[in-house]
Parts: sequence; C-alpha cells; structure tokens
Amino acid sequence: MIVEIITIGDEILIGQVVDTNSSWIAKELNNIGLSVKYINTISDSEKDILDSTKTALKRSDILLITGGLGPTRDDITKKCLTHYFNSKLVFDKTVFCDIEKYFTRRNRPINQLNRDQALVPENAKIIRNPVGTAPSMLWLTSNNKVIVSMPGVPDEMKHAMSSEVIPLLKKRYRGNHVIHKTVHIFNIPEAELAEMLSQWEDNIPEIIKVAYLPSAGKLRLRLTGVGSNKATITNAIEKALNGLYPIIGDYIYGFDDEDFTQSLLNLLINNNVTLSCAESCSGGYISHKITSIPGASSVFKGGIVAYSDSLKINLLNVTKEILEANGAVSKEVVELMATSCIEKLNSDLSIAVSGIAGPSGGTEEKPVGTVWIAWASKKRVISKKFLFGAQRDRVILRTADAALILLKQFIENNKL
Amino acid sequence: MIVEIITIGDEILIGQVVDTNSSWIAKELNNIGLSVKYINTISDSEKDILDSTKTALKRSDILLITGGLGPTRDDITKKCLTHYFNSKLVFDKTVFCDIEKYFTRRNRPINQLNRDQALVPENAKIIRNPVGTAPSMLWLTSNNKVIVSMPGVPDEMKHAMSSEVIPLLKKRYRGNHVIHKTVHIFNIPEAELAEMLSQWEDNIPEIIKVAYLPSAGKLRLRLTGVGSNKATITNAIEKALNGLYPIIGDYIYGFDDEDFTQSLLNLLINNNVTLSCAESCSGGYISHKITSIPGASSVFKGGIVAYSDSLKINLLNVTKEILEANGAVSKEVVELMATSCIEKLNSDLSIAVSGIAGPSGGTEEKPVGTVWIAWASKKRVISKKFLFGAQRDRVILRTADAALILLKQFIENNKL
Repeated sequence: MIVEIITIGDEILIGQVVDTNSSWIAKELNNIGLSVKYINTISDSEKDILDSTKTALKRSDILLITGGLGPTRDDITKKCLTHYFNSKLVFDKTVFCDIEKYFTRRNRPINQLNRDQALVPENAKIIRNPVGTAPSMLWLTSNNKVIVSMPGVPDEMKHAMSSEVIPLLKKRYRGNHVIHKTVHIFNIPEAELAEMLSQWEDNIPEIIKVAYLPSAGKLRLRLTGVGSNKATITNAIEKALNGLYPIIGDYIYGFDDEDFTQSLLNLLINNNVTLSCAESCSGGYISHKITSIPGASSVFKGGIVAYSDSLKINLLNVTKEILEANGAVSKEVVELMATSCIEKLNSDLSIAVSGIAGPSGGTEEKPVGTVWIAWASKKRVISKKFLFGAQRDRVILRTADAALILLKQFIENNKL
Repeated sequence: MIVEIITIGDEILIGQVVDTNSSWIAKELNNIGLSVKYINTISDSEKDILDSTKTALKRSDILLITGGLGPTRDDITKKCLTHYFNSKLVFDKTVFCDIEKYFTRRNRPINQLNRDQALVPENAKIIRNPVGTAPSMLWLTSNNKVIVSMPGVPDEMKHAMSSEVIPLLKKRYRGNHVIHKTVHIFNIPEAELAEMLSQWEDNIPEIIKVAYLPSAGKLRLRLTGVGSNKATITNAIEKALNGLYPIIGDYIYGFDDEDFTQSLLNLLINNNVTLSCAESCSGGYISHKITSIPGASSVFKGGIVAYSDSLKINLLNVTKEILEANGAVSKEVVELMATSCIEKLNSDLSIAVSGIAGPSGGTEEKPVGTVWIAWASKKRVISKKFLFGAQRDRVILRTADAALILLKQFIENNKL
C-alpha cells in the first residue's frame, strides 16, 4: 500500500515555514502499518496541484493533501480538486453551522469569504472541522484509491487525521503489523546509554529494531517490531522490555505517548494532595507545564515566580542574611523557598527552584546551568543540585523535567 | 529559473526526522533571487532516485539533492547518479586525504567503508567536505542545468551550499530579485482581515504578491516582490506598506523575523520600568515567555500564579465579597489583581489575567475562552475582556500574546 503526501503552500517553498505536518502524518501512519513513500511540496498553483495529483494517483494508493483550504484568494486547493474529480461546489448546511458556531463563540461577524468555506464538492465525503473553518474532503475512487484534502494548520489537520482518516485507513488496509514501544528515559546522555545497552541490544529478538531519539536531557528509546503475527511481535517486545529494567529501570519515567505531566497530575489527584511551586530560574515554566493539563486546578494551588531577590524576601521568608551567606542559588535558599511555599500557598507538597539560566550570571564555582531544586511536604524537604549546561532554553526545560519527574518518583517511593 | 529539491532518506518518510534542510536551502536561495518550486522527499531506492531525477531535470533548471551519501549499505545516491550521468567511479586522492585527516583528528581508525567514500564520479566537480566524510558532487549539463548532490547532515549540506553552490548559482543566474516583507498582525481573523484589505489588495503594485499565514490568534501577512530592479521592488513594497497602516495599523505588532517578546523587553529596558504579573488561567505562561529572553531579570520582578481563589485572596488583596459579587473572571477581580501586583511585587507596571481556559468551568454568560486582562501602572489601570475560543492550549497562548502585545501598545501610546 503506497502512501503519498502533497503539501501545498508557498510559505514552505520560500523557507518561512518548516513542513512538520508530513513528519507527523508519516509517524501516525507508521503506527498503523502504512508507510509513506513520497512527500511533495508544491506551490498554490493550479497546474502544479493538478499535475501532482495526477502523478500521485498513478503511483500511490493513498494520497493525503494538506494546505490551500483557507478563505483567501491564494487558497485554490478546493477549486482544483473539485475540477479534478469532475464535481461542482454545493452549499453544505452542516459545515455552515460549524462555521457560524466558530464565529459566535468568538463573538465575531461572519463574512462572505467564510460563508464560501461552506461550499464543498458534491461528490466528496466531508470531514467537519471543530477547531477551524475549513472542512476536510475525502474521495474514494472507483479503483480503490483514497484521497484526502485537509487544512495546512497543524491542529486542524491533526484533528481530521485522528478523528476520521486514520480510523478509515485502519479499517481498509489490514496489512503487516508494525508495533512500536517507546520508553522514556531521563538524565543519561545518549552515548552512555548506548554503551550500557550494548549487550542488551545484541541479545534482543531479531525482529525488534532499536532507535535512540534524544532531546534536551531526555531520550526516547523506540523498539519496533514488524511481522505478520501480532503475538510474536508483542512477545518479542515484552522480552526486550523485561531485559531493559534491570539495566536502566531507575531512569525510565514513562512509555509511548503518555504525557508525563498528566500522569503526575493523576497521581496527585488519586493521592488527594495539593501542589504549589516557587520558581526562580525556570520563570513560571513549571507552573505553565502543570496548568497546561485540563483539571490542574483541582490539585494545583498556584505558584510564585520569585525572579528577583526582593520577591524571595517579601513572599518566601528568605532573609538578606541567608542570601548573602549562601547566594540565591544554594541548598539553603531553595529549601527555604520550598517550605515557605507550602506555608504561604497552603499546599501539601511544593517544588522550589533556583538556578542560573544564563547566558550571564555564572561564576567559576556556580557556572551557568547550575540549578538547585527542592521538594517539600509538611514533614520533610529534599534538595538536589544539577548542572544543565550553558543553553538558556535547555536549562529551563531540563529544570522543569527534573522537578516534575523526581517529584513523581518521591511520591511513589514515599520519600516525601 | 526553476529550482527543485530532492531529499533522500527513510528517516524523513517514517517521520523520525523533520526535513529542515529544504527550508534552509529555500530561504538561502530566495536571498539571491532564486525560487524553489518543488520539494520532493523519496526513499533510498534506486528506482525512486532515478525517476525523480529524470522528472526534475525535465521541469527544473537547478536540482539540489541531499542525503544518501553516507558510508553504509543503504546509501546509494552516489551510485545512482554516477549511473544516471553515464560515468564511473574513480579514486580521488584529495578527498581521501580529507577523510584521513577527519579520522586522525578524532583519533579513530579508518575502515574500508570510509575509504570507499573517496571514490567519486569521473565527470563531476567535487566539493570537499571539511565537516564530514562524504564530498558533494556537481554536474553542469550540456543544456545548462545544474545538479548538485550533497550530504543530508545539515552542517555538511550547509557548508557545501555556502562555500560553493550559492556563489556558483549567484554568478550563473544574475536574475530576479525577490524581496519579502512580513507584517505581524494580531487579533483579526483571516477572513475578516482579507475583507478589510480587499480594496488595498486590488490597488497595490502588480509586482507584489500577498500571502496570509495564520496561526492561533495571530497572522502574518507576507508581501513578496519579484523583479529585475531592486529599487522598483523596494519602492513597491514601501507603497503597499504605507497603504496598510491607515487600515490595520492598530493591529500590526511587528515585522519580519523580529521576536516580539524581545522587543517588548527592550522597550521596558529603554524606559527603565519594571514589570510583574499575576496570572490565573494563563498559569505561568506569561512569566515563562518573558523569562525565556536573556536579560529579563533586569526588568522582570516576578509573578504570582494565583490559580486558586485562596491565592488571589491571600496574596493579591482580592476579598471573598468581591469574588462572590463578580466571580473570579471579572473586570473587578482582574483590576484588583493588577494593582495589588504592583504593590506587592513593587514594580512599575503589571499584567493580570483571569479567565476560563477550559475544557470545563464555562457558563452561558461566561463561556470557556472568556478571559479578562488588566494592565496597571502606579497611576492607572486598563482592562479588557476577550473571547479566545474553546481550546485550552490556544486560550493560554492567545492570552499571553494579547497581554504582551497590548502592554507594548499601551506603553508606546502613553496610555499607562
């Protein structure tokens, strides 16, 4: 089964926008055993859209098109495909209601250009768009090919794929099984991990392939099994996983698409404990990560972004003497921030952070990237020093990850 | 002059790696007046490489190929192109010395696979690779087409492009100038903007093309001018821009690659004023955006993430009576949060936010997406209500954008 992607948009061809849609689609299709063979980027030109569609339908079975569905003059994908499939545009009442609702929610007037977005090709199946105004369109040809045209805005494309396209393709093409298992690993550099796992890699079942996917301070290890027998693959993956725990169990903090912050939040909810945080160098990012998750308000009391020393003094009981004796980036200060946070924000648990995100502010003794993190309950406080390197954005990301991942471990192991 | 890019690599087709090379190449070529018209991603398969090369050389004048030049079995680009150009591989001593040096510097043994990288097609111009082991290859055909094959590793590709390919193309094609001007626009939906600008679009100089690039709550309007005379294009763009201000001047908040938060920070630094913020529904994201910028500590005092009502009461002078009379998401509460923030955090200016990020918590009167934002100085407080739609992550992003963009406008217009 050959899959082809066409992304339409001048913004990609002039290098203003990187095409991340194709990569997302490819990954999702891989998970259901379908492989993308061609990705093409073309401009919003009628000739190119028609030519590419023709070429694609000669060599591929599934054609996924993104982009060019907006309300403005440069968006011509819908017109071109309607022409290609010998159809005509008709007014769709359901789509119009969706568009109306979209604007009503935003308290905005609806205009003719948006009204025209409710015109859809007569012979296409329409996929409604709850997060934007352009619906997606799907055609099944007489020779069993599937063509889908979706918006280029990533959220809108992802919604169409997840809600309709992937379920449909899954049903139509039951081919080889491809099973992935992704292990989330924390705080080991890639080369060191590869060395630790060298013998394990030699001994895992042959049908399992291993890939290392590093990102700032974290790493995903992906095991992929391909074959016709699902049980054989599942068993092989399980066997490989069982071999992994004795070697790096302590560094594993999650699996697959699990959202780590969500699982921490679930743990807090199940244990019926509240959390607050006092952030210096992470500047609100820990609070942001927690509050990104729906339902955070049931356990997250809030936080203090004590970016300046005066705030640490006024709001978190840190004294000038303690600051002068130890510096703001110290065990003493961060532990005091954590315990004061519990008291002032009236929570069961707290996280406190103080560090040097850089690029300036480092010293020989405390270089840029030095971060102290403290975790407190009403009974005790634990703190730890980290060195997160010299890049400001990475220091902030890694601080938040360490703070949240270790909080979860401390709760699970009854350390707090 | 039509430019085409072919990127070769299974890692892109399975979604493991996002193709950032094409975007980089497109941008660089744009700067010298060349436009990419097609980008194709294909697998490391002989048939696909030959077919794509053939198609590209029919429709394009310049073909840039990346990937498939490594030392391992799956890298077959060099073999395929040598075959395509009826050539044979010969040993290149200069390339071999480069490879030897590369390994000596790393104190690594050189093996047969690496030695084979010194075999190059007899009829190609070789571009040496000081940052890796695979040289690039360049062919000029009898009908004046240029074909370049480069490594897929971004640093190695960039080196070949910057040192040899771009200078060569610049010399060969002294063609059109392409000038872009991107205008950042805030808080008008795409279709509404298009309607407002419809007459303006009809009247701008013909050599200017307009593109709308929307993202959550923001929009970039890109003006592109193409022509042989640079001054003519610059003038045309300036004329178009001048026509834009009277219509949507209030909604413009930046240009080109400018980082908005950075420019706000510069404004605060230049005016020597400090900022703090009190966030409810944005949950720390505004603080995070500000503190992502190096040097934020010189003007940002910090913030309070008053996620729970008890924090609004304990830390921000909000009373139970005010909360009961108006609700947490109200003009009264958000203005009080802003003025208390100035007092408690001792800053010159403050931002306060209270809203319903969803998915739950909405009512008929205050649906999910309702957000009140207040901006305060020691003299006055301004507040505004927004409806940011029903998606939690977008509500958070749009809240932060509105808070920061309008703060900048208020400072610039002496409103605070």
